This record gives sequence, structure tokens and C-alpha cells, in this order.
Amino acid sequence: MRLTIADIVQLTQGELIGSGQMEIKGCAGLKEAKEGDVSFLANPKYEPLAKECKASVILVSQGTSLPGKTVIKVDHPSLAFAKVIDYFLKDSATFIPPGIHPTAVIAKDALIAKDVAIGPYVVIEPKAVIGEGTKIYAHSYIGHETRVGSQCLIYPFVTLREKISIGNRVIVHSGSVIGSDGYGYVTVDGKHTKIPQIGTVIIEDDVEIGANVTIDRARFDKTIVGEGTKIDNLVHIAHNVSIGKHCLIIAQVGISGSTHIGSHVILAGQVGVVGHLTIGDGAIVAAQSGVSKSIPAGHQVFGSPAQPLRAAFRANAHIQRFDHYVELIQELKKRVEELEKK
Amino acid sequence: MRLTIADIVQLTQGELIGSGQMEIKGCAGLKEAKEGDVSFLANPKYEPLAKECKASVILVSQGTSLPGKTVIKVDHPSLAFAKVIDYFLKDSATFIPPGIHPTAVIAKDALIAKDVAIGPYVVIEPKAVIGEGTKIYAHSYIGHETRVGSQCLIYPFVTLREKISIGNRVIVHSGSVIGSDGYGYVTVDGKHTKIPQIGTVIIEDDVEIGANVTIDRARFDKTIVGEGTKIDNLVHIAHNVSIGKHCLIIAQVGISGSTHIGSHVILAGQVGVVGHLTIGDGAIVAAQSGVSKSIPAGHQVFGSPAQPLRAAFRANAHIQRFDHYVELIQELKKRVEELEKK
Amino acid sequence: MRLTIADIVQLTQGELIGSGQMEIKGCAGLKEAKEGDVSFLANPKYEPLAKECKASVILVSQGTSLPGKTVIKVDHPSLAFAKVIDYFLKDSATFIPPGIHPTAVIAKDALIAKDVAIGPYVVIEPKAVIGEGTKIYAHSYIGHETRVGSQCLIYPFVTLREKISIGNRVIVHSGSVIGSDGYGYVTVDGKHTKIPQIGTVIIEDDVEIGANVTIDRARFDKTIVGEGTKIDNLVHIAHNVSIGKHCLIIAQVGISGSTHIGSHVILAGQVGVVGHLTIGDGAIVAAQSGVSKSIPAGHQVFGSPAQPLRAAFRANAHIQRFDHYVELIQELKKRVEELEKK
Repeated sequence: MRLTIADIVQLTQGELIGSGQMEIKGCAGLKEAKEGDVSFLANPKYEPLAKECKASVILVSQGTSLPGKTVIKVDHPSLAFAKVIDYFLKDSATFIPPGIHPTAVIAKDALIAKDVAIGPYVVIEPKAVIGEGTKIYAHSYIGHETRVGSQCLIYPFVTLREKISIGNRVIVHSGSVIGSDGYGYVTVDGKHTKIPQIGTVIIEDDVEIGANVTIDRARFDKTIVGEGTKIDNLVHIAHNVSIGKHCLIIAQVGISGSTHIGSHVILAGQVGVVGHLTIGDGAIVAAQSGVSKSIPAGHQVFGSPAQPLRAAFRANAHIQRFDHYVELIQELKKRVEELEKK
Repeated sequence: MRLTIADIVQLTQGELIGSGQMEIKGCAGLKEAKEGDVSFLANPKYEPLAKECKASVILVSQGTSLPGKTVIKVDHPSLAFAKVIDYFLKDSATFIPPGIHPTAVIAKDALIAKDVAIGPYVVIEPKAVIGEGTKIYAHSYIGHETRVGSQCLIYPFVTLREKISIGNRVIVHSGSVIGSDGYGYVTVDGKHTKIPQIGTVIIEDDVEIGANVTIDRARFDKTIVGEGTKIDNLVHIAHNVSIGKHCLIIAQVGISGSTHIGSHVILAGQVGVVGHLTIGDGAIVAAQSGVSKSIPAGHQVFGSPAQPLRAAFRANAHIQRFDHYVELIQELKKRVEELEKK
Repeated sequence: MRLTIADIVQLTQGELIGSGQMEIKGCAGLKEAKEGDVSFLANPKYEPLAKECKASVILVSQGTSLPGKTVIKVDHPSLAFAKVIDYFLKDSATFIPPGIHPTAVIAKDALIAKDVAIGPYVVIEPKAVIGEGTKIYAHSYIGHETRVGSQCLIYPFVTLREKISIGNRVIVHSGSVIGSDGYGYVTVDGKHTKIPQIGTVIIEDDVEIGANVTIDRARFDKTIVGEGTKIDNLVHIAHNVSIGKHCLIIAQVGISGSTHIGSHVILAGQVGVVGHLTIGDGAIVAAQSGVSKSIPAGHQVFGSPAQPLRAAFRANAHIQRFDHYVELIQELKKRVEELEKK
């Protein structure tokens, strides 16, 4: 299928500066782009790179001018470029083909919608439901009575345990486990007896879950990940946690049981959150912090244990000047001794 | 199968206050329970919830009274309730059915006991041994000469590498890898040559291992996880580590090579332990701590590097008052200068 | 195949002290070795153990003498012993047999070299390339157009996503995911839209990757792991990261996007590195550190946020004496007050 610059103008609803006739064959970053490619400039600091860029057309923000270049002005160059890439990828040969591979083991009473793509050795247990247009790569496991929405993308080796619910347009990367048992025991005389975990997990629409993530099912009730929340690799979400909408949970974060996280929250890499806390909407937790108290909406914290950002920075600055303070104290001690002698 | 309140009294060996005739159809938490359910009250702070609870019978501790409610008094309500849930779950349709799925690839000289349930695409290598009543979900991999005990539960995508040993009633959640090579190299002229890891891993009885855990095999000799120890998700246990009995190892903990951990130890979330240490029986390490020295039995530590709990708390309190101390020092300096002028 | 002490002398190019005729049947550590075994002594502190050792021959360093023992003197006993173990293991029955298992699903236009071993239920997608002598265990997934070099060892449940490149003699342990999408979104009005990740991953020769590791593909361009670098379990490497040659990346480390790591760098366990930094050649980062600034070549850092090693140790020492300093300040305050009264 032939695609011209004019087609990209239409796709991105942008304003063209230059000629729209040229055919576009690929998309690439400013550095890698060659003739026939479309590229984009989102961050002004890369303008020098854009001036040298070989791409035949560049998506730029409204205020940007690149004299001598063919550009398309749009509100959000990154977003517009993502749309263009999606267009190029949609017929990509690297996706699994539509249809159900003959080696997939699908229970008779599982409900499979139309237009799915189900790869080799996928296992779908009784009464599971797979929505329209969903793609499930090789080997993934869909447990009993679990519901997967439409237009989802499930990569290889994903475990969706029994009786959980996955929304629409959800992406789950390889090795992630959703619905494993929560970590709960009764300890009597020093021995730990397992508490059955009979709750569920609900993943709402447009969530993306990275590789090797673990999300435990609730003891009763449900563990929830809200609409549009994006979870990075190797994150751990314990039983009965609820995460709001449009959060960013960066790699290797751990969230303990029954903690409630609001919407638009950012937890940076390797953050740990204690159980039974409430993290307010829009809160931001800096990398490696250990959150041991609830955080009001909009607050930013850092450190282990986490403190308000400004206090944590001041404390760190003091710690780095500790040598100086100790010298000061010792000097003062001498001077006081001198004064006392007089 | 019909189950009455009287049956639950017998199952839990409790004392009934009220009538035993009603049929019980499900079990649920205090909040979620409806008529026909059994629920439980373990923590006195939920007593108001119990008074409002719709359940037809509630398991309570010996000292508790809930006037107007049908209750069963037991020593450990959580434990008794776990028993009841297990009873309800034992015929659950969400477990894989008994028998060996025709797609399982089982070596001719593997030894499979009776009453096992082996799911689709399970691979069992030569001379492996699977004990009676063990359930292995879809896809899991059992390596050469590896022994799995009886009544185990192995979820999808578990790797049990060659020549390791898993006890009885062990649960391993999806994505966990047991018996991967320890991380060992000889470095000569800046290049790292792999040291073969020819030891084993021994997982004793009643251990539970969460999702996406990694437990490396020993260089020689063995890595051990003791009886009744419970390991949460995404934990890393290096080669030649030994962990005692009835420990709790919370999510994302990492234990370096050759460290010995006693019994009844608790390592909270994201703790890291340096190699070649000894952690005494009953020691507790608070979340995110970095343990760089051995810990005597019964001690509690916190921080990175970890300190005795009380010292760590005091140090943290001082750090949070650092501004105040710096002001004090500066004020003293001025006052000393004033005195010196006189 | 019969192997004598003299054969081991030849294999290790060492100098024999004693008789070379005895047959050797196994290899073991100093403690576990029995008659008929070969063992080794690398660390002088284990010399007492070596004197008691039952092995029939011990590999030792040039300066070591063990009177009454048959020894082979070599430059690097660990390295020499690794060679001997490899020799014993090469015909081990615990490796998967050569050939392609009939249940493997291999695309017609995938290119499979000779002498490979491909286990049950392996899936190899169109146009993938597998090099000579490479072993792929049960279930692993090789994506579209991905190239795997020769003599590689891929354990069960490995995901190599599409269009990535794996060098020669690379080892990937179970559950690792290479080429998952980088974590990149455009946020407009509080909603996160996925930025397609159309770059690749390049794993160079002689890299070893532990279990349940995640290495994301680049947005454009490539994520690289350099020759001879060894990555431990549960490590996260984000998109567009480059890691140099012969690095050691210990368990549970997380490296954020676009960070460049030099050669011969050591990142100890649970370290986190912020994005867009440069870590110089030979730098060492102590366990649990949080690196928020670039590190010059050869420097050592510790702490969260990470400081130069010596400064971090001094600051920690001060923190542990904080009680003492506070007492000093309060005492000085009193003495100044006394002086002021006079």
C-alpha cells in the first residue's frame, strides 16, 4: 500500500509546509532516518539534529520552523508520530497471523470471539472468554472462567489465572503472572498455614503490563488496576491492592497488600510501598523510596523512609555536609573550653 | 454435596452458639458475605463489621460474643476458616482434572505416581519422579532426574531444572525458576569465565514459592529452603544459600550467595542480604534494608546499611531534625563569637 | 570414556606433583570430594580443608604445596577446574539430546543450522535464524526474524521477541524476556498513549543472562549488552540502554532508559540507575545504591543517592554517631548559657 506525505497529513490532521507528493516508506528517529522516512521533533533540544535529519518529512510542534525542510505541524508530534508508526505496523509480518493455531488447547465451553489470533500451544481452560480481535501469542495460559476483553495483546508465557477479568485493549508482556495467590498465612505456634485466596483481579481497559510482572489475586474481593495505568517490568502488586486510573508504575516497584493508590500517581523505579496505606491522586514517589505512611493527593516524596521531597533533599544535603558540621561542633567545643578557662 | 452449619462445627471442632441446621453454600469475608455463607472474625477491630454481617454463621475466637448471631467459637478463627474454604475448594472446577493430558511429553523412564493431574504441554524429562496426588499445570517443565514430592501444586510455566528435589505439599507459582545456574565466574585479565554450577537445590516439605521467583542451584553441595518457609513473588535466592524452617521471605527480597538464614526469620519486602552472612533464628529485617553484617538470633534491624532497629529509628529521627540541629550549631557559633568579643 | 590424572594434566596444561595413572571419575569441592575425584584449591584460606580432602588429585596455584597429596600446579585453579568440569559435563545425560523434537513448531522459512538441539514445544517464528550447535530447551519462543548465534544455550520459557540479535555462546536462563517493548508513553491531558517501540536488542557474544531477566527493545535504534557481560537473575534493562563489555550486573539491578554503561563495570545487587546517565569504564556501584548522576571511569560509589565510596562511608559513620553529636551540641548549649550568665 502506497503512502504519501499527503496521506500522513491527513492521518495526523496536521498542517503541511512543503510538497505532499513524495512516497513515504518508513519511520525512524531523527538520527536514524533516511530519505523516504518520516521522523518527528518533540523536544526543542533536538532541533540541531532535526536540521541535519535525512527524513523526507518531519512532524513538528506548532511553534517550530525548520527552513528548507518539509514539515507537518501538529499539536503533539510524539503522539502524531505514534499514530504514523501504528499505521506502518498494522500489517507487519511480525504479528501472529489471525486464526487459531491447531496446537492450541481450547476447552469446548470456552467462548472465543471472532477475529482473534491464537498462537501455538496456547491453553484456554473451561468457560474462559476471549474478546474480539484479541491476539494471544504462543504458550500463554488463560485460566478457568477468566475473561479477556477485545483487542488485547497477550505475549508468550503469560499466566492469567482462573476467574480474573482483563479489560479491552490491554497489553500483557511475556512472563507476567496475573491472579497468583496473595501472600497470606495464619501463624500458630510458629508455623504458617496458608489462607486460601479466593478473590479476583480486575485489569481495566487500556492498561499495559510489562514483562515478568506479578499481580496477586485478592484474599476475598478484588485487586484492581485502573483504566489507562501503565506498569513497567518486574513490578509486584500484592493482594487487595487497588490502583487508580492513568498511573505510571515504573520497573521493580513493589506494592504491599491492601494499599489504595489514587489516579495519576507516579511510582518511580524500585519504590516499595507498605501495606494498608492510601496514596492520593497525583502523588509522585521518587525512585527507590520506601513509603511507610499514606501520602496526601498531589504530594511528592523521596527517601527510605520517604519524606516530603523538599525535606528529603535538605536532609540529604545536610548528610553530605556532615563532615563540615562535625568540624564546626568540635571547633566550638574548643572555643567554649577556651572561654571557660578565662 | 450438602453442607450444614453442624458439619462446619465438626470440621472446625468448634462450639456452636445457635442452630446447626441451616445449609451453607459459600464462604466470604465479613463485608462480602450474604445469607447462606460462612464468614469469620479474627481481628477484634472488625467486630462492628461482624455485627452487620449477612453471613448465616460466623467463626469467632473463644472470648467473642455476637448477640443474635449464629457463631462457632474456635481457637483460631482464621485457621478454622481456611479449613472451611479448603473444604469448599476441594471439588472446585477451577483445578485441573486428574489424569495426564495427552499432549504432555513424559520421558519413558520418568516415574509418575498415581492420582496425579498433569496438564497440557507439560514436559517431564528422563528419570524425573512425580509424587502421588501432585498437580502440574499446563506447560511446566520438570528437568532430568528431578524429584517432586506428593500433593504438590505446580502452576503454569514453572521451571524445575535437572537433579533438584522438591518436598511434599510444596506449592510453586507461575514463572518461578528453581535450579538455575548460580552466578559464578573466574575473572582473569578482565574476562569472566563461567564456573560450572554442579550442585543442587532442596526444597523441603510445605514450602510455598510465589510467582517469578528465582532459586539458583549450588556451585557444589546444595541450596536449601527449609520446611514450612513461605516465599513471596520476585524473590531471588542465590547459590549455596540455606534458609531454615518456617521463615517468611517477602516480595522482591534478594539473598546473596552462601548466606545462612536461621528458622522463623522474617525478611520484609525488597530487603537485600550480602553473601556469606549468618542470620540467626527469629531475626526480623525491616523492608528495604540492606544487610551487610551477620545478625544474632532474635535481633531486629532496619536501614541500608542495616542497624539495630532502635538505633536506626533514632538515627532517622535525628536526620529528620537535621535542619534544627544545624540552626542550633549556627546559633551557638554566634553566641560564642559574642562571648569571645567581650 | 576413561580419564586419568595424566589426562587432566594435559587438559589443564599444569605441572603434576605425584603419579598420573589413577582414573578420575568425578569432580567436587574440597569438602564433598571422595576418592576418585578431582578437586581444586583457589583461596589459600581453604588450605586446611585441602589437607583433609579425600580427592585423588587437587588443582592448586603455582605457589601452593600440599605435602603427601597428588596435585597439579596451574596458573588459575578455578579456571582450570571449570575446564575439567566442562569436560565431565559435555556428555551429561542432563542436556537435551541433539535433533529437533517433533512437537517443535518451526516456521518453514526459519533457518536452522546443523547440530542444534531443539526441545519439545519450542516455537520458532518465520525468518528466525538459529546458529550451529545451539541448544533450545522446551517451550522457548523465538520471534520473527530474530537471529540466535551458534553454541548458545536457551533454557525453558525464554522469550526472544521479534527482530533481535543474540550472539554466539550466549546463555539465557529460564523465564527471561528479551526484546519486550520499552516503557514509553506520550501523556496528553493526563492520559498515556503508547509510543511504539520499533528498535531492537543486540546481545553480543559470550553474554550470560540469568533467570527472569527483562531487556527491553529500543524505541528506535538498539539496546545493547556487550561481549562477555554477565547478568544475574531478575535484572531489568530498559530501552536504549547500552552496556559495555565484561560487566557484572548482579541480581535485581534496574537500569533506566538510554543510560550508557562502560566496560568492566560492576553494579552490585538491587542497584538502581536513573536514565540518560553515563557510567564510566571500570566503575563499581555498591549494593542497593541509587545512581542519579553520571560516574567517571574507575570511580566507586555507594548510597541512595549514591556518593563517592569514601564520602558515603564517612556520612554513614557520622549517622551512626548522631546521638553523640546531638549530646555534644546540647552540652555546648548549656555551657554557653553558663558563660553568658557570668
